[in-house]
Order: sequence, then structure tokens, then C-alpha cells
Amino acid sequence: MKENHKVDGMSNEGKTVRRIFLEIAYDGTCYHGFAFQDNEKTIEGTIIDAIEQLTGEKTEVIGASRTDTGVHAYCNVAVFDTGSSIPPERFSNALNTKLPADIRITKSFEVSSDFHPRKRKTEKTYEYRIMNTDIEIPTDRLYTYHCSYRLDEKKMNEAAQYLIGEHDFSSFCSAGAQVLSHVRTIRDIDVERKGSLVIIRVRGNGFLYNMVRIIAGTLMDVGRGKIAPEDMITIIEKRDRSAAGPTAPPQGLFLVNSTFDMD
Amino acid sequence: MKENHKVDGMSNEGKTVRRIFLEIAYDGTCYHGFAFQDNEKTIEGTIIDAIEQLTGEKTEVIGASRTDTGVHAYCNVAVFDTGSSIPPERFSNALNTKLPADIRITKSFEVSSDFHPRKRKTEKTYEYRIMNTDIEIPTDRLYTYHCSYRLDEKKMNEAAQYLIGEHDFSSFCSAGAQVLSHVRTIRDIDVERKGSLVIIRVRGNGFLYNMVRIIAGTLMDVGRGKIAPEDMITIIEKRDRSAAGPTAPPQGLFLVNSTFDMD
Repeated sequence: MKENHKVDGMSNEGKTVRRIFLEIAYDGTCYHGFAFQDNEKTIEGTIIDAIEQLTGEKTEVIGASRTDTGVHAYCNVAVFDTGSSIPPERFSNALNTKLPADIRITKSFEVSSDFHPRKRKTEKTYEYRIMNTDIEIPTDRLYTYHCSYRLDEKKMNEAAQYLIGEHDFSSFCSAGAQVLSHVRTIRDIDVERKGSLVIIRVRGNGFLYNMVRIIAGTLMDVGRGKIAPEDMITIIEKRDRSAAGPTAPPQGLFLVNSTFDMD
Repeated sequence: MKENHKVDGMSNEGKTVRRIFLEIAYDGTCYHGFAFQDNEKTIEGTIIDAIEQLTGEKTEVIGASRTDTGVHAYCNVAVFDTGSSIPPERFSNALNTKLPADIRITKSFEVSSDFHPRKRKTEKTYEYRIMNTDIEIPTDRLYTYHCSYRLDEKKMNEAAQYLIGEHDFSSFCSAGAQVLSHVRTIRDIDVERKGSLVIIRVRGNGFLYNMVRIIAGTLMDVGRGKIAPEDMITIIEKRDRSAAGPTAPPQGLFLVNSTFDMD
């Protein structure tokens, strides 16, 4: 992917080029994930098209979190450059008139021209939502994972606490991830039950490929009594994907917040 | 519609014909309502097909509530007759293997052969859900109505109380409804806010065509200050559809419970 973000299309001669920051909410059900792919419907590709419809500019979009197929967001972040005279704060409403209803820009403003959302210090919060009922509730099926085993959320929460802090999370990273280091910091994690809904909420400085879904799958193994909370210690120490539980399905995962060091 | 419910298909000679009661949850997004229609995808039609796949019998299904296109249910009710030897309690799981994921049978059991869900004394509870945010949240768009005006849920609740009791609800009934009487009894109604979600919950002995959606549209007019809570008195008295507010869209409506006099 090019990281040199020229604004093509209409001539920008004499125009001020601004970098616009977008907060984006989406329903990932019908998309092949966030990141642009040729010949696939993606969140990023759909936003690129909306910008072109609005400004006439073919631009690139730099996303903060490359969420997978079927994963949802209340707040992902992206930036793009534009020579348009549309006031930065107006881009949210203007783009929403061009976007389908399953993607909404909830906020837009100008940032410095070197702001790159994957190179800034960041904190992201994910939720993994499990509907713990005998029979799946149809209106929840796209936005929760259905688990018919009764889950012990207290044990899941106990197990989750072992993940807090800086660790090598190799056991919680799917093969195929190309990153230099598997060390990440989880600042906060808790498991809470609200009626039949069990929510895993995790906040950290970045997550490996499938990391939250593997954490969710492993905590569900704890919740149904397959493994004990303290087994998490060994699972982390092994630094081996096969030590952890299964990767939980995408539809239960929400990126709920993304914050950046803006200085 | 025939109300004579023969079981066709395989010969039932010598078989005991049982009437099976079903509790049904569904996501109404992709259906033209509950009631069977030729050449349209309906909840009832899909259940009829599933019964035929399971038992080989072409049967009729008698539904309790003929919800509209796009309306959802946690608990609608229907009965059908079968000569199958499948134990009545097993029909729920067996039918779920034949049904699409947006319809689930949550319970099944045998009832007396004359049990008719639209002729029994009943109590139904509906919820109308409004997402009261500046910008619509994509993952809520199919299961709430988005209202960007700030709603005053206390005034809405005050207005709602005038609806309690036995009234002629002609002002809250869409034209085209063919019923002998517009008199219904609302036992209970309340309006509650949970964060950005405003929920209208109403329980009664039956509802006229579009009645809950017109109540919701009228209460939203109260919530945004267009009319006063006490205006509900005049609106009811007029017995005229044009006196009430607009019909709120279907996707916010859930049939949450249906109970019957089983004796």
C-alpha cells in the first residue's frame, strides 16, 4: 500500500490541501473488512468512493484499525487529504449523504498533514458480545455470538485479569500476521453479564491479528469449565497459538473506541 | 383464509392428529410480514415450508399476531395440526434445523385441538425502540427507529398514561383495517430511557392495525414538544386517524410477549 497520499483528480493548484480525520461507525456484516481490496466491497473502498462522489478527488484513506470481515465498529478512525473547500467539520454530514446506511461518519475535523493513525500512540477498546441463551435470538444474530453453554462470567473475568499488562501475545495471534513484535499492552479487561448478554471489554495500545477473538474464544473455554482461570498463565507463557482456545466468530466483535495522542 | 385445518400430504389414517403450539422469534427485516401471502416471503409461509420438509405434511398455520413487514418478534405464537409422531416438545429443535437463522422456534408443546390463538383471551406486549442520537448508529438501524430530535421521555410517559384503560382507539388505527370494533384495552404503558435508547412498552388485550406504531409516532410528537401530553385526551376523543401523529416505521417495533388463557 502506498503511504504517499497525493490527491488526484481535479487540479489542486492554488488550493490548500487539508488532512481530514474521520470517526467511523459501521455494520461490518456486508463488508470484506475495513481495508481496501480490489474487487471486494470494503469499508475503506466505500469511503473512498463517497469522497470521490463528494469532491471529485480520487484520494487514499489511511485507516487506524483494519477490522476483519463481519466485525463492527462504533468508532474506527481514518484520515484522508483533500483540496476541497468543504469545512472540515462538515465532511461528516456531507459524506453521510453519499454513504450507505451501514456506514456513518460520526465526526470529522482537520489534523496536521503528518498525522498517521497507525503511527501515533493510541488506545483502542474492543467489546466481544456473547448471547448466552438456549436458542439463538434472530434479531441478535448479526451482532453477538450465540453460545448455548451456560458461561460462568465470574471465572471468565478472573481468567481475563492474567492478560493485563505488557506480554508477548504470540499465543493470541493468528498465523499469517506480519508484525515485528508480538508484545502488546492490555491496560484493562473485564467480563460482565447483563441478563443473557456476556460482554468482554478490553482496552490496549494495539492488538495483534485476531487477538481479541482468540481471547474471547479462550475465555469462553474458561466460562464453560473446559480450562481453569489460572491456565491463562501457561497459555501466555507458551507463546504458541495452539495453546489458546478457538478464534471466536467475527460478528460478536465491536471496535467501540479509538483514541490518539493528538500532539 | 380457510379456518378448517386439515392435514394433507401423507395419509393420516390411524395416526393421532395433534395440535402443536409454537412460540416464534424472528427478525422481520427480510419478510413481508407474518401472514401467508402467495408469491411473497413471509414468516408463516417459511414455517409452513419447514413443517412440510420435516413431516411431509402440507398443513396450515394459525398465527396469533399478523405483524407487518419489517416488524420483529421475541414471541409470536402459532398453532398447526400434525399426524407426525415427533414428540410435541421436540418440534422446536426439529423445525429450527429446517428454518433460516432469522426465524427460531423457542418452544413447542401440544394444545387441545380447538385451541385458536386469535379466539382466545390474550395479552400481548409490544416494545417500540427509538435510538435518540445525532447520527444513526449503523448496527442499530435494523432494530430501532432513529430520531435525531432530542426526545423528552418524561413527557412521553406522561402522555402515554392517558391511553391506559378501555377506549375506542379509532384515532390510532390505520384505514383499511377490517374489524368490527375499535375498542381495545391497554393495561399498561410506559416510556423509559436507557442511555440513547427510548423504549415504549405497551401491554394490552389486542391491538388494531398499526396501533402501536401510531401510538409511537404520536408520543414522539409529544417528546419533541410538538404537542402537549394532555392533548392525548382530545386525540382519543376525536376517534379520527388524522388527529394522531404519524405511523412510526416498522423496524422499531418488537412483539416481545404473547400470553393466552390456556383453559
